[in-house]
Amino acid sequence: MTFFNDLITSLFDRKWFFKSLHGSEAFGLDDLDDLLNAVMTAEGEVSALVHAQQMLTLIDQLDDHGRQVLFEKLLALDLNAPDLAQAALDYAENPSVAALARITETAEPHWLELFRRLNAAPNGTVKLVRLRQHLLQAAKQNPEFLRLDVGFKALMRGWFNPGFLVLKPIDWSSPADILEKIIAYEAVHEIKSWDDLRARLAPEDRRCFAFFHPTMPDEPLIFVEVALMQTTPQAIQEVLTPGRVIISQHDANSAIFYSISNCQQGLAGISFGNFLIKRVAQELQRDLPKLKRFVTLSPVPGFMAWLKTHDPDLHEKASAPDVMDQAASLTKDLQKAAASYFLNSSRPDQAPNDPVARFHLGNGALLERINLFADASPKAIKQSAGMMVNYLYELSEVEKRHEDYARHQTIHAADTIKQYLKS
Amino acid sequence: MTFFNDLITSLFDRKWFFKSLHGSEAFGLDDLDDLLNAVMTAEGEVSALVHAQQMLTLIDQLDDHGRQVLFEKLLALDLNAPDLAQAALDYAENPSVAALARITETAEPHWLELFRRLNAAPNGTVKLVRLRQHLLQAAKQNPEFLRLDVGFKALMRGWFNPGFLVLKPIDWSSPADILEKIIAYEAVHEIKSWDDLRARLAPEDRRCFAFFHPTMPDEPLIFVEVALMQTTPQAIQEVLTPGRVIISQHDANSAIFYSISNCQQGLAGISFGNFLIKRVAQELQRDLPKLKRFVTLSPVPGFMAWLKTHDPDLHEKASAPDVMDQAASLTKDLQKAAASYFLNSSRPDQAPNDPVARFHLGNGALLERINLFADASPKAIKQSAGMMVNYLYELSEVEKRHEDYARHQTIHAADTIKQYLKS
Amino acid sequence: MTFFNDLITSLFDRKWFFKSLHGSEAFGLDDLDDLLNAVMTAEGEVSALVHAQQMLTLIDQLDDHGRQVLFEKLLALDLNAPDLAQAALDYAENPSVAALARITETAEPHWLELFRRLNAAPNGTVKLVRLRQHLLQAAKQNPEFLRLDVGFKALMRGWFNPGFLVLKPIDWSSPADILEKIIAYEAVHEIKSWDDLRARLAPEDRRCFAFFHPTMPDEPLIFVEVALMQTTPQAIQEVLTPGRVIISQHDANSAIFYSISNCQQGLAGISFGNFLIKRVAQELQRDLPKLKRFVTLSPVPGFMAWLKTHDPDLHEKASAPDVMDQAASLTKDLQKAAASYFLNSSRPDQAPNDPVARFHLGNGALLERINLFADASPKAIKQSAGMMVNYLYELSEVEKRHEDYARHQTIHAADTIKQYLKS
Amino acid sequence: MTFFNDLITSLFDRKWFFKSLHGSEAFGLDDLDDLLNAVMTAEGEVSALVHAQQMLTLIDQLDDHGRQVLFEKLLALDLNAPDLAQAALDYAENPSVAALARITETAEPHWLELFRRLNAAPNGTVKLVRLRQHLLQAAKQNPEFLRLDVGFKALMRGWFNPGFLVLKPIDWSSPADILEKIIAYEAVHEIKSWDDLRARLAPEDRRCFAFFHPTMPDEPLIFVEVALMQTTPQAIQEVLTPGRVIISQHDANSAIFYSISNCQQGLAGISFGNFLIKRVAQELQRDLPKLKRFVTLSPVPGFMAWLKTHDPDLHEKASAPDVMDQAASLTKDLQKAAASYFLNSSRPDQAPNDPVARFHLGNGALLERINLFADASPKAIKQSAGMMVNYLYELSEVEKRHEDYARHQTIHAADTIKQYLKS
Repeated sequence: MTFFNDLITSLFDRKWFFKSLHGSEAFGLDDLDDLLNAVMTAEGEVSALVHAQQMLTLIDQLDDHGRQVLFEKLLALDLNAPDLAQAALDYAENPSVAALARITETAEPHWLELFRRLNAAPNGTVKLVRLRQHLLQAAKQNPEFLRLDVGFKALMRGWFNPGFLVLKPIDWSSPADILEKIIAYEAVHEIKSWDDLRARLAPEDRRCFAFFHPTMPDEPLIFVEVALMQTTPQAIQEVLTPGRVIISQHDANSAIFYSISNCQQGLAGISFGNFLIKRVAQELQRDLPKLKRFVTLSPVPGFMAWLKTHDPDLHEKASAPDVMDQAASLTKDLQKAAASYFLNSSRPDQAPNDPVARFHLGNGALLERINLFADASPKAIKQSAGMMVNYLYELSEVEKRHEDYARHQTIHAADTIKQYLKS
Repeated sequence: MTFFNDLITSLFDRKWFFKSLHGSEAFGLDDLDDLLNAVMTAEGEVSALVHAQQMLTLIDQLDDHGRQVLFEKLLALDLNAPDLAQAALDYAENPSVAALARITETAEPHWLELFRRLNAAPNGTVKLVRLRQHLLQAAKQNPEFLRLDVGFKALMRGWFNPGFLVLKPIDWSSPADILEKIIAYEAVHEIKSWDDLRARLAPEDRRCFAFFHPTMPDEPLIFVEVALMQTTPQAIQEVLTPGRVIISQHDANSAIFYSISNCQQGLAGISFGNFLIKRVAQELQRDLPKLKRFVTLSPVPGFMAWLKTHDPDLHEKASAPDVMDQAASLTKDLQKAAASYFLNSSRPDQAPNDPVARFHLGNGALLERINLFADASPKAIKQSAGMMVNYLYELSEVEKRHEDYARHQTIHAADTIKQYLKS
Repeated sequence: MTFFNDLITSLFDRKWFFKSLHGSEAFGLDDLDDLLNAVMTAEGEVSALVHAQQMLTLIDQLDDHGRQVLFEKLLALDLNAPDLAQAALDYAENPSVAALARITETAEPHWLELFRRLNAAPNGTVKLVRLRQHLLQAAKQNPEFLRLDVGFKALMRGWFNPGFLVLKPIDWSSPADILEKIIAYEAVHEIKSWDDLRARLAPEDRRCFAFFHPTMPDEPLIFVEVALMQTTPQAIQEVLTPGRVIISQHDANSAIFYSISNCQQGLAGISFGNFLIKRVAQELQRDLPKLKRFVTLSPVPGFMAWLKTHDPDLHEKASAPDVMDQAASLTKDLQKAAASYFLNSSRPDQAPNDPVARFHLGNGALLERINLFADASPKAIKQSAGMMVNYLYELSEVEKRHEDYARHQTIHAADTIKQYLKS
Repeated sequence: MTFFNDLITSLFDRKWFFKSLHGSEAFGLDDLDDLLNAVMTAEGEVSALVHAQQMLTLIDQLDDHGRQVLFEKLLALDLNAPDLAQAALDYAENPSVAALARITETAEPHWLELFRRLNAAPNGTVKLVRLRQHLLQAAKQNPEFLRLDVGFKALMRGWFNPGFLVLKPIDWSSPADILEKIIAYEAVHEIKSWDDLRARLAPEDRRCFAFFHPTMPDEPLIFVEVALMQTTPQAIQEVLTPGRVIISQHDANSAIFYSISNCQQGLAGISFGNFLIKRVAQELQRDLPKLKRFVTLSPVPGFMAWLKTHDPDLHEKASAPDVMDQAASLTKDLQKAAASYFLNSSRPDQAPNDPVARFHLGNGALLERINLFADASPKAIKQSAGMMVNYLYELSEVEKRHEDYARHQTIHAADTIKQYLKS
């Protein structure tokens, strides 16, 4: 596609231009300094790319120890803070072009230029996404490595600027190599087999969409699974039961977003989900003008942990193995507790307790309904005593609610839920 | 293509989500502050894009005065230098993640964040390229505007990272709207009509290639015209004479790069030409394995200006209207002068005198031949007394010569040319 | 695209499989018998294709005389009529599978199998279209050649089955090699230059569509030019005047089909126009739901010839060089004559006198309005004293009117026009 | 893609043009006469298509009985043999254009025109392929139905003219809905699961190619599976063993065609395999110039049935359940019998006994090696006592051998195999 790929590939294939700058033998950890130096100092633009390619190949082969060494070496490429301070003072005195240029040069740790050069090599972006995944992992042991991420994350945010994202439908005519990644990355309701996947993609009342980045065409960034229905489901089995009745897509009035999965841990902190839902809602409405409701069926991953602290008695009852059969005795108490969990923050930042709630309310959705005993899977029982909720996306309100939430932390919820609190 | 385009377009088309944040009436210079503020503070991601779109629309309509006002307002968004100095000192004392993040936040003038947000809007990139063209123009009167360009150019360089460039052949089956831009942008040998263009694109012994950027699919960035020949031409009429004999592409052994034109003044200082020639050479060799020589037929735009200073007598003779007929009397002197012009720098930085020579020698080409009386066009007579030269790209040597030039300012030239100097 | 192309091309390129069956020297008329024999008897499927390719190459080079020889040789490949008569009698007696197969084998002149085999070669279809054009031409001198066309036309009709046709918009981003054919093939209102073409394609209130066949991707079969307007024009200058005001496509309520041109004389008698107009109307309405009227502005090519016979006096007056200025004196008479020309047939088959009327009325259009003095071009003056007419396509009526016309020769016309007759 | 699809689809969707010609209720067998009549007599081209679409929908829903009724009704549309006989006699007397046209009109049963009109409807081709499958099935009970196939097959051959075929690689990035058909249609070595399929498609030393027809983009017509190896395998487990060592594609020198499957029973008698193998060989050699050998590993489906008649004793021994372990005692006898089976025809037409041999030898391959005990699957044991053979495609010889076989029934086989006969 892009010419670099071809250019560099051909260099390696044909030994054109070069005899090979370092020989074709594999690189090892001992070559790290040389390669770092080669990438940072190369004058020839083509040789810079070859060295970047070589360095990425080496990085791919590093183990945990190797990466630790790498990250330490990178930290040594820090900016010169006294120089920067001096440049800033000079600029304060005389805001000239040259003085500003001096700030620009000195304000950035050199590892960022390294990341930029690596990114220019073929498949550089996807390899750097994987490197950042390892960096965040390693930073759990070595928090100082997070300094590397300060600018790295900003670079990633630029490279994954929403303007570059491409929305693609995923269906039963999608490439098998993409589909096997959908199976692997599904994070909410496990896909157990190709038949299971087919049941989610092939019927005419099902949809799936993913975002892709042009430089990583084989790697979905995030995807959402949608069920077209004539009602808003109160339990996951209404969506996923094998042998369910398939309806005509033209008879549906509701689009149920029942699973959203991020695919790339190396893109942590860079959000795509908000655009995805709005964009998919728009796409669906264009295709199927009868669709009137866009609503999720979502898990409540933080409820039981919160309940343990806030109402240990109820937590114990809700932890019973047969909780799904205790509707009669537990409904009232769980409704009230859930309403409190969603509407009253226990967090210092006053944001909603539940991470999924933070995501959807932050997107401008309304918390519409609490469904107790809606998911009998062990994971759901453990996280939320089987509770699921519906978040409603009203396209005419979504931007306003988003602004309310962002500016005033307003939580838009249905009156029914507010009533639970008072009961 | 990309989803933003669709999303925002649909917002404007359908008045979805919004009733319109500012009404649909046109914006004027008076709204500049409001729009600047709206883009910089918008919390809703979609509304941020809408405001960016609105601001770009306003910018498009500004005249010189309006842009002067804009650039002045942008300069007011400068970084706070004392804050940055303090952040740098703090980091010198304690290089923590937070301190580094503080530097990152304070080291950048706020106009760069504005450019980033504008770039995310539909067609943002191409509109910013045009804005930079105007900025560079305005800076001739107001040099302080160049402060805006310090980071702007760096942003552009990132957005136009060679990894994004797409090489496309331009031929007689290319879209007419692209072809009319080729006619307009041709900077070396004017294309006088569609028939003239057809003569350069349609015959099987002609090629043309351009670089495009994915976000600007209708705008070539740079293009090169190539003639496939059985010899290296010594004069431009060997290439461009109407009615010339067309040869079979399979009989050619030489690819002549006879015209390279940059298309976007707003991308000044961001070089694509070096990659273009190597990439095209590679593409041609893949298609036509019999091609053995890749060579330019290039103008010498700075010769006569240099000659006026360095040999006023010869300059006067070479300025005669009938200079093309003075070969007998002028050849020796002009050869010697030309050799001196190419091989001995009169510049403080010791780079070659001729800008085209700096480009090709910097790419790793060899100065192969000086062709006197090779272009009878008024422009060529004026610039170089009709002289043209051939630069030879030997693919096996090109990277080495590039490094020699970059590191040691070595000028690789044919022995014949060095001989002229001694004559 | 298709594999045959590649396969055969590679045979010629690489001399794979074969050393070349007949040597690489050019074929001449003397080889015709050998090649005919080779194509008709080849057992190897690949060699059959090679011979077909060779024969097509020879045919391409034939002049009028050569083609006359060819057509005579083809006629010698006639069916054996007594054998066929016997096979038919046998089948009448015993309708067995074998007897039917025998009919199938004997009922067809052998030249049809030849055409089929030639069609399978690379670019065979387009070359046979050109051959049929020459055949129809030659048949004017040698009517017996029309026997070749009996089955040839049927084969063409199958190959150009509407199911294969592809509708493509033609606009200013279409390939230049297609556009130069649009210039060449325009048959109604001449396109004088690339600028003239641009004025018909680039503005947002203009459209053009063409049908293509998959095996002839560079050759339009038929195309229609459309003006989006707010009124139904009464004269061609309302559509084509340089410098006219361009309107927003979204403000248009009428689509004016002002030029339809067939491109391939070799497809004479195979009609695409009826599908084209309905398909384009449908496409336009999908894009621009505000469009309410689909109407032509059409020439009247047969009027003056008819008038000369039916009203010589009026014909003489209408032949005056300044007829466009004679509205005052001629309007009434011309209206009445025109109404008679359109509504009363002078033909043995009782079809409308005007060929363009036969086309549009046959498609299910209504003759809506007669516009006298509507086209001042010399061609229009000569054909129709400058008269043009509007045919209206009402999508809800078009199929019914088509059936009326086809079954009962009903001519649907506006009442105004019928009134002219009575005046 | 093609406009008919869109046109007709929109008619049904939007009730454009029509109110619906027959109402929207489903059609039944009782409507057959009406629909047949409607399709055959429709004047409006669009209504003809609508009726064709309706008739195809009805045909799709017919059961065996319904199809029997249909086929009988079609037979009633036979040609008028006495008329044809008369037309032939007239033409014998006076070979005029009109007389030839009369033959063309009368020589064809009317059911062929019906098939042509059905073919023009959306998805008509694929539905007619299925109809022919049913026809051939029904003809086993009612041989007179084969009269319908006389022209039907000829029509199919025209529609599936090799010039239309498109070769596509099938790999792990192919659409899942195509891949599940590959699993279903594999006729030689069963594909047991998606993992099994992945093992045949994803490794770099495996290839698969299929032919498609433009009007049936989701239906492969035939496909071939290829293993890239460094040797010619003597047994299928060398190709298909799970966990085998994957080699670099660039190290392979042999392409093994180990499975070829026809997909469409409705295309019986229309051969694609010969083009497929040559085309794939060519494609592979272009990609991987080091490939020197193109060879099959093929089953021998008719051997044991033949052996039972020709050598009952050996047949009994070879039928032992543990035949794969009897190499020591059976090798010599089986080699001799196999050589006789392959080299000496027992058929009236003197063609090779084995159907797979007829296919490959007819394509121009050489019978290179007999591999006893090469496939331990129950099917192979039963058909051929586990024997497999290699057919060698030497691209420089393939067309010559094809002609030898077609003209002189020559069987090209390796000397070793001829030796077996003499032993």
